[in-house]
Amino acid sequence: MADKTKCPPLTRDSVIAAHEAIKPHIHRTPVLTSRTLSGFASTPQTPDDLKGTEYEGQAPARPKMNLFFKCENYQRVGAFKARGAFHALSRLTDEELSRGVVTHSSGNHAAALALAARTRGVKAYIVMPTISTPSKIAATRGHGAEIIFSGSTSEEREAVVEEVIARTGALLVPPYDHPDIMLGQGTLALEFEQQTQELVAATPTLSITGAGALDAVIAPCGGGGMLSGVATALAGTGTRVFGAEPAFQGADDARRGLAQGRRITSVKSLTIADGVRTPVGEIPWSVISDPSKLRAIFAVSEEQIKSAMRLLLERMKAFVEPTAALGLAVCLYNEEFRRLVEREAGDKGWNVGVVLSGGNTTMEAISKLFSAPAPEAERAEGVLGKQGERVAENVAG
Amino acid sequence: MADKTKCPPLTRDSVIAAHEAIKPHIHRTPVLTSRTLSGFASTPQTPDDLKGTEYEGQAPARPKMNLFFKCENYQRVGAFKARGAFHALSRLTDEELSRGVVTHSSGNHAAALALAARTRGVKAYIVMPTISTPSKIAATRGHGAEIIFSGSTSEEREAVVEEVIARTGALLVPPYDHPDIMLGQGTLALEFEQQTQELVAATPTLSITGAGALDAVIAPCGGGGMLSGVATALAGTGTRVFGAEPAFQGADDARRGLAQGRRITSVKSLTIADGVRTPVGEIPWSVISDPSKLRAIFAVSEEQIKSAMRLLLERMKAFVEPTAALGLAVCLYNEEFRRLVEREAGDKGWNVGVVLSGGNTTMEAISKLFSAPAPEAERAEGVLGKQGERVAENVAG
Repeated sequence: MADKTKCPPLTRDSVIAAHEAIKPHIHRTPVLTSRTLSGFASTPQTPDDLKGTEYEGQAPARPKMNLFFKCENYQRVGAFKARGAFHALSRLTDEELSRGVVTHSSGNHAAALALAARTRGVKAYIVMPTISTPSKIAATRGHGAEIIFSGSTSEEREAVVEEVIARTGALLVPPYDHPDIMLGQGTLALEFEQQTQELVAATPTLSITGAGALDAVIAPCGGGGMLSGVATALAGTGTRVFGAEPAFQGADDARRGLAQGRRITSVKSLTIADGVRTPVGEIPWSVISDPSKLRAIFAVSEEQIKSAMRLLLERMKAFVEPTAALGLAVCLYNEEFRRLVEREAGDKGWNVGVVLSGGNTTMEAISKLFSAPAPEAERAEGVLGKQGERVAENVAG
Repeated sequence: MADKTKCPPLTRDSVIAAHEAIKPHIHRTPVLTSRTLSGFASTPQTPDDLKGTEYEGQAPARPKMNLFFKCENYQRVGAFKARGAFHALSRLTDEELSRGVVTHSSGNHAAALALAARTRGVKAYIVMPTISTPSKIAATRGHGAEIIFSGSTSEEREAVVEEVIARTGALLVPPYDHPDIMLGQGTLALEFEQQTQELVAATPTLSITGAGALDAVIAPCGGGGMLSGVATALAGTGTRVFGAEPAFQGADDARRGLAQGRRITSVKSLTIADGVRTPVGEIPWSVISDPSKLRAIFAVSEEQIKSAMRLLLERMKAFVEPTAALGLAVCLYNEEFRRLVEREAGDKGWNVGVVLSGGNTTMEAISKLFSAPAPEAERAEGVLGKQGERVAENVAG
């Protein structure tokens, strides 16, 4: 990986340069809108929905939101991670590239690095736990990478990475804690801005504010590589940037870290949003903790993530993984965020950009998530059902 | 519904006129490509895959197919049915419209008719069995239609439709057996042709033949309204039209009808492709049985439909209902079709257009389909797995 001290500064201009570098290799993924989902987001929750929250007994917020979705589930390898991987490799010298690249991951970053390496004719070593599912191993191998097996703890995996580096001289490409990765992921925000302007220019009624710009963008936060990249890209543009995390088992480490004024460095959560089970990295944190770049982070429950995911699949027909549903879940169900939008956006409302981060899940995983709803999950369904019906009645009436 | 005897002739020009009439109301749905799925379609099945078929012991076909997908799952109401409904209404006089429209359906046609009627400011009466799922009732009501409940047999439903007509003077808009509906559905083929040409003009490598035209189009066949419309639209253009049906419990009535030289008028199948459980209608049959318009119809198993559906969701990230997977299932698994392509397309191969008819399914339905694979289903997974791995190896090697 390129020496961190020699990286471009974390500025919008650096994101623009990163975009030029990776453009030939990535998809300009579509931006979609949905009248139905914007309608849901602009319908107040019921007093029942607020029971057990700090807003119990208060009148539900009445925000106006018009949603635009950046569909990185249609990105190469099915997730935004392709952007950072291609950018990281574009920053290496031929000599560095000739030694190959290595990472430890069984997720989207591994597939992205394997693809980027193959495209550049470079060897990729991916360290994966022996217990990884065969389909993930086959997929990573399918991208042309050499799989090296390890134990499952992070210590065991890192030890194997060290071995690979010692043996081959390969460069480590970390999944998020590096400026080149952050700048690469941030490129999605440049397209998002431009595509929204194009859409609104072609169909002015798509914008509730009448302007072509996004008033806000909300994106999932795990290691924070993408969220910090988006915040870097949009700094100074007037577009507010928000993060979304799962509350389950403390996976909302970035939100809690902002409240405490220091980065939380350890998370052990089995949230269904498996793309964000990791704590925020050090360099992403330097952006995320800057209030001039990131406004706030909000957390949602597992049931709210499931409800949002269901809407994305059933109504928008967009096949996404649970992590990708975080932003929509905040828009629909986080009363604190909804009050903020009502307060700041007023009657005019906001055009809100929601980043759909990826689409790598399986029929089996979906079956497991939705076949046997827990009592809590059923309650969330109830919420959604009521909200949906109220919208339907408005439309019909 | 417009008098059948006064309808435009079933010609390409009539489809073009229908397209002009409905354009303001429908989405020009995207055409997508997938290197992965084209790779699968162009990879021979294994000798094991042919066991138990008439091709057992023979060398598997080696067709070359380059797939283009017309994504009507992103159409309004989530299915191509919006086209026919808008066209049917466009052909009615104001006097006729003022009496309202009626149909009996709990599926995509009901939602489509409700939407088209609301758009025209016309009353829609939808006759649905009392046992319909609440979400379907709510959705149809959400489109502004008046629901009228009936018993579940087709006799009971038709009796209620007669009552509604007697009481209100509403016009019956049937789901497929009418020229206006057929011409409306056929409009998707005009877009499919043009969009493929545009895609290939922008990225010539997307075409394996070097030409911008589709060599073939394959679409699901239930009542046959859409397939006959597509065949009408493409008649005389050189693009071959094929149909796809489920084999389960005789749902391949059109395929069997062609073999017997007469239309089969009754089907009782509970195939998972619930959009095509109905026999081909009389007027669609007049097109489908014309060999100058339709080349052939092929059938696939339930397991093959599931495998194709899995690929569309997991690999292409396109959320589709099982019926929409029929065309891809034929391309991947029907050895008779694959031999035909090898024989006729030769080394050059064909650009094959696959119609994804709709995306109206639920998480619960998917969970039911994929949570407890039957032994047969597992076998189909095996087929897919092997084919997938072989492709992966080719790519990696």
